[in-house]
Amino acid sequence: MRDILDELETLLQRRRQADPASSYVAQLHAKGLNKILEKVGEEATEVVLAAKDTETGGSHESLIAETADLWFHSLVMLSHLGLSHRQVLDELARRMGLSGLEEKAQRSR
Amino acid sequence: MRDILDELETLLQRRRQADPASSYVAQLHAKGLNKILEKVGEEATEVVLAAKDTETGGSHESLIAETADLWFHSLVMLSHLGLSHRQVLDELARRMGLSGLEEKAQRSR
Amino acid sequence: MRDILDELETLLQRRRQADPASSYVAQLHAKGLNKILEKVGEEATEVVLAAKDTETGGSHESLIAETADLWFHSLVMLSHLGLSHRQVLDELARRMGLSGLEEKAQRSR
Amino acid sequence: MRDILDELETLLQRRRQADPASSYVAQLHAKGLNKILEKVGEEATEVVLAAKDTETGGSHESLIAETADLWFHSLVMLSHLGLSHRQVLDELARRMGLSGLEEKAQRSR
Repeated sequence: MRDILDELETLLQRRRQADPASSYVAQLHAKGLNKILEKVGEEATEVVLAAKDTETGGSHESLIAETADLWFHSLVMLSHLGLSHRQVLDELARRMGLSGLEEKAQRSR
Repeated sequence: MRDILDELETLLQRRRQADPASSYVAQLHAKGLNKILEKVGEEATEVVLAAKDTETGGSHESLIAETADLWFHSLVMLSHLGLSHRQVLDELARRMGLSGLEEKAQRSR
Repeated sequence: MRDILDELETLLQRRRQADPASSYVAQLHAKGLNKILEKVGEEATEVVLAAKDTETGGSHESLIAETADLWFHSLVMLSHLGLSHRQVLDELARRMGLSGLEEKAQRSR
Repeated sequence: MRDILDELETLLQRRRQADPASSYVAQLHAKGLNKILEKVGEEATEVVLAAKDTETGGSHESLIAETADLWFHSLVMLSHLGLSHRQVLDELARRMGLSGLEEKAQRSR
């Protein structure tokens, strides 16, 4: 599982250089930050709707797909601003006081 | 980097069982899906604001922190519904036609 | 100024019955509540972006237009669910302790 | 019904000058545009959730209350930037080709 976000980041960097006529990612970068942020907001609403729909029989697949859309557009945003998902993961690790070692220590308690 | 989301998922599952009085995560689960989704929507707006602020000198640190908040609450949502971030990463991999092997093949071109 | 929301509500009710092929409003109703709520979320993000842009010289016209979009789609949502903007205005009045008389009394203090 | 938004606008202007310690509106202005826009985004998500909840028996009262919150914070935003809800209503009227006269003409067809 470990490499998917890394691979995606590499791919997103490559696609940024592509022709906007043929690449959705290149198109988003060409349209600029506002367009990318509109998508982040839009996908967040779609996550909320898909999650609510699971309460009335909506599929988990839809929610997974919408969450993937939300994360994808967050990654495009980070890429647009020269940032990496690794910084986000580091921040999450820092907050949770997580590290391989610490986690192992907690499990052995 | 690889294990952070896995570790976080394990931690979130453990915290779900904790006393809501002492754990923010347990509290979110106790309040239910709407509360968790309110947070997803709220954090998406804060990501948008922090990203816009980078255009006028706002720090990248704030944007990283807000993105971490957004991903964190997405993870709590998945956990609340018995889903895993791995399903989201699989979906991202599937869409991008990514796999360790394919990626290696692309790099060697 | 007074009648615009009333007139709009009447118009929205009429358009709801129109052919989805020719009316955007009829189309929204035909697609259903989720589509209408996606638009509410989307327009809220666009309001946030347009408001931030006023800080760096973005036009007030854009913000007014995005706020109009947000209110418009809220009205379509109310109409879809058989509710009226009057109920929203009544609620606002109730909270603020406003009434024509009270307001007059306050002014004369 | 006509005067509620006007009265609210007047009240919001007065409260802007109030002591932030005693007035929620003064507090929002003191915290600045980002805080106000966070609330706009937050209330939009709460509208979406309340609207979805009507599908499973949630009360219309909740949705009306959340829509009132969304409009209220939009009005605070406009006030913060020196704009008026009248400009939003004018824009809505312009788009719909509405005017008292036109509307009357349409009805008589």
